[in-house]
Amino acid sequence: MSPRVESSGGNEKQNRKCSASTKSHSSTRQSPVGEKKMSAMQEISPHVRNMKQLQYAVLAKRASRIKEELRQGVRKPFKELIEVCWGDPHRGGVKPLTFVQQVLAGCVYPQLVDSDKLPVDVRQRAELLLKGCAGGSVGSYTATRGIPEIVHRISEFITSRDGGAPSHPENIYISPGSQWSLMNVLNVLVDGEASPRTGVLTPRPCYLSSNLSMVGLGAVTVPYDLCEERGWELRVEELHGALESAKGVCRPVALYVINPGNPTGHVQSRESMQEVIRFVSEKRLFLLADEVYQDCVYGEQSEFLSYKRVLMEMGPPLSDTVELASFHSASKGFMGECGLRGGYVELVNLDPAVMKCIYKLFSTDSCAPVLGQFALDLLAKPPQPGDPSYPLYREETQHIRSMLVRNVKRVFEVVNGLPGLCCQPVEGGAFAFPRLHLPPEAIQRAEEMGMQPDVFYCTRLLEEAGVFVSPGCEYEPKKGTYHFRFCIMVPEEVMEELLRRLSSFHTQFMKDFS
Amino acid sequence: MSPRVESSGGNEKQNRKCSASTKSHSSTRQSPVGEKKMSAMQEISPHVRNMKQLQYAVLAKRASRIKEELRQGVRKPFKELIEVCWGDPHRGGVKPLTFVQQVLAGCVYPQLVDSDKLPVDVRQRAELLLKGCAGGSVGSYTATRGIPEIVHRISEFITSRDGGAPSHPENIYISPGSQWSLMNVLNVLVDGEASPRTGVLTPRPCYLSSNLSMVGLGAVTVPYDLCEERGWELRVEELHGALESAKGVCRPVALYVINPGNPTGHVQSRESMQEVIRFVSEKRLFLLADEVYQDCVYGEQSEFLSYKRVLMEMGPPLSDTVELASFHSASKGFMGECGLRGGYVELVNLDPAVMKCIYKLFSTDSCAPVLGQFALDLLAKPPQPGDPSYPLYREETQHIRSMLVRNVKRVFEVVNGLPGLCCQPVEGGAFAFPRLHLPPEAIQRAEEMGMQPDVFYCTRLLEEAGVFVSPGCEYEPKKGTYHFRFCIMVPEEVMEELLRRLSSFHTQFMKDFS
Repeated sequence: MSPRVESSGGNEKQNRKCSASTKSHSSTRQSPVGEKKMSAMQEISPHVRNMKQLQYAVLAKRASRIKEELRQGVRKPFKELIEVCWGDPHRGGVKPLTFVQQVLAGCVYPQLVDSDKLPVDVRQRAELLLKGCAGGSVGSYTATRGIPEIVHRISEFITSRDGGAPSHPENIYISPGSQWSLMNVLNVLVDGEASPRTGVLTPRPCYLSSNLSMVGLGAVTVPYDLCEERGWELRVEELHGALESAKGVCRPVALYVINPGNPTGHVQSRESMQEVIRFVSEKRLFLLADEVYQDCVYGEQSEFLSYKRVLMEMGPPLSDTVELASFHSASKGFMGECGLRGGYVELVNLDPAVMKCIYKLFSTDSCAPVLGQFALDLLAKPPQPGDPSYPLYREETQHIRSMLVRNVKRVFEVVNGLPGLCCQPVEGGAFAFPRLHLPPEAIQRAEEMGMQPDVFYCTRLLEEAGVFVSPGCEYEPKKGTYHFRFCIMVPEEVMEELLRRLSSFHTQFMKDFS
Repeated sequence: MSPRVESSGGNEKQNRKCSASTKSHSSTRQSPVGEKKMSAMQEISPHVRNMKQLQYAVLAKRASRIKEELRQGVRKPFKELIEVCWGDPHRGGVKPLTFVQQVLAGCVYPQLVDSDKLPVDVRQRAELLLKGCAGGSVGSYTATRGIPEIVHRISEFITSRDGGAPSHPENIYISPGSQWSLMNVLNVLVDGEASPRTGVLTPRPCYLSSNLSMVGLGAVTVPYDLCEERGWELRVEELHGALESAKGVCRPVALYVINPGNPTGHVQSRESMQEVIRFVSEKRLFLLADEVYQDCVYGEQSEFLSYKRVLMEMGPPLSDTVELASFHSASKGFMGECGLRGGYVELVNLDPAVMKCIYKLFSTDSCAPVLGQFALDLLAKPPQPGDPSYPLYREETQHIRSMLVRNVKRVFEVVNGLPGLCCQPVEGGAFAFPRLHLPPEAIQRAEEMGMQPDVFYCTRLLEEAGVFVSPGCEYEPKKGTYHFRFCIMVPEEVMEELLRRLSSFHTQFMKDFS
């Protein structure tokens, strides 16, 4: 069995290698006064040193260069790059929602609120939002937790989403994106000095930023495998296995789940969630539920249920004791306002002393961006039937929804029709994560070039077909399996072009290496 | 001599007390299944546990209650609260700049760009900014470092500010506020596991968020005293003294300076900065220069010089070797757009391997809020003479400038005319930080009430006069000295009312306790 636990603690050899190579580097770089710099690599925080370099950063550089070449008129087999590496709907060509644009415009330039350029409900909403800002300006700091009125509307949204299970504003924190909230909660849970180290159970494959943040804080990530053959299902046996594998390596304190899945596209069933809840209760783990794709569920049999709801509906003693942090964001879903940076966390069943520490951490950064907070408000309370903005809002969101449903269907059809490619059904989220069965020749060639096989594939896909996807190794899947991830939140015509280019590239690639 | 080094490491007694008291708390809080929660206080990160609770948070709660009471018509000796606790110009009543509002409105709702509601240069600027966004939308993620065009304009701004000393875009990182950049740089420098611990020299008094962030990362802050009698001057002897005091306690790796000062209002001279630079070079310390108030300099003899400029003008070997991080922000200065959350750091002379680690850290959070990035762009390149928006822009900024110059003068006159109060000249920044010479009776009464003497004073000022300032103990000044801090960025009429209330409150307070 290959070691499951991958982290700083478990990788001393690489650490030593890293310091050593930099030591020699810095000693050859003597400054004119004959002294080496203070912060040579070997002197910096080992947690940070242990963070992996993202592969996509390397591909992103290459992608920029290709775009520049296209601008300069260099001839390529494609006229435009298709960038589906990120979960960034507006980048992919999805249009921002008019209601959101209008309300925000009214907020940043309140003179517009008096103008007839904007529908009346937009003007009212902008006025309402500005009333919550000190000095009536988006340029003021807000309370640490976020603007109280917005936090309150988020709690109402959660209560209604969860079939009435109550949500309390004092348990909600708004932050610049959900990742920041995750970091703050982890910061409280992870003791960078502890021996044995603090462990966090994380899915394999997993959205990498989260893993990186954990390693950066000094935690050990303990992967539990998702079952690809069963549509990336989370099986509780795997959680037990992961916990077993942590013995002697670290002391696990939390379980991190992503539902709907990133990169997997799986949507958990109530039964699966109940099993997870019983597991964390039994093992006394803190449950971190990344639920930022909750609006994006496409499977006919799938439904999004929040961990909060499932937990509350399980009743006491579980509903009174299991400690849960649930994350959501304005970046994902139909709004797709990634650039505004608004996310939140709801904390459930936490010890009041721990809540105090979390408050302290959030208060070291003054507040989340006000416009990101506004976006969350619009997410929590969109236009309602009867509002002047409702018809257009409904039309735009329905359009995005049907586009996604169609894209998911087309991806499944086309990708699974290609030899050596296999994609599980995408039930939710923003990504497809097909598996690549690469010919041994391709793997060998990649190794000769010092690349991971999936990076090799993605690099060629980028260079030859102008499609920028991210290699599966970013998400640390099971050893010996290769994948790539791409965003499905693109207009239908872009998706068709993407599938056309992928098909023709892939067919040629398989021919070249067989 | 009282111990200088205050931190987690140096305060074991308090730590033990803290864990112990929470232990008993959590053991009385058994869950229905008879098990204590996973994350009881004693199990959470000691770095976070060691972070001090901000006093102003307690006062802020009281301030909210007073505002609520005023709304409900409860009779008080004042009709409105004056909130000058934060450095938040718009909250204080300073008007946002029209140019900024208009450009941002054009960016969030691009249809406005075609409208004649906006001046032509505003529309052009909005178009230019949107061209830098993927999909032409503020809702897209940007590059880790920030939108390349904006980073480029910031580097041009720095070069021109620094008399031509070149600035390179690849050394600049945009973040959601400058505090976040500081955290990322510190994260690389501070090894939370090191023994002895990592130390950072910080001014006394010091803006507290920074200190808190350092402690939260596991660093030991080593205070160096600023000389109040000499207008809060930074004296290099104090730096030597601080370094001496760290012996046997921690290994200092960096020196943190704030210029213009917060809370002090001091502006450093070139000579003082040169001394600091020689000191960090000799002691091989990383220089962290918080320069967010660089636009706010009022002293007739004062001029803002950046550390970068002074360093570059000192020439080699210093200019090639001293490692520097300089922080700036759109929150401060005349723009005062705190709520948009845009700040940046410029890194100078860093080891390339360290730069790589910093890139990794910034890339775990996707990007800074796009509108905060835009605010930085407008800060870096405001309207120029000849532009349609220039006259109004100039009028608005001149108005703020003359308001500040007048406020600073009035604060000095009035505060220094009161017995038991003494304020050093405010040469720059957003705050006055007068010293309170409290009568022994007041100190005794505060102690009886279990409050720090300055918290006692500020609480009464809030309750009795409706003026919300922050107590000096937040900034950890020299032991046995008492101060309070208030923001001077308020309209002149607000400042007059504040000074009127302060004078009458203070006179009565001194009478009551003499």
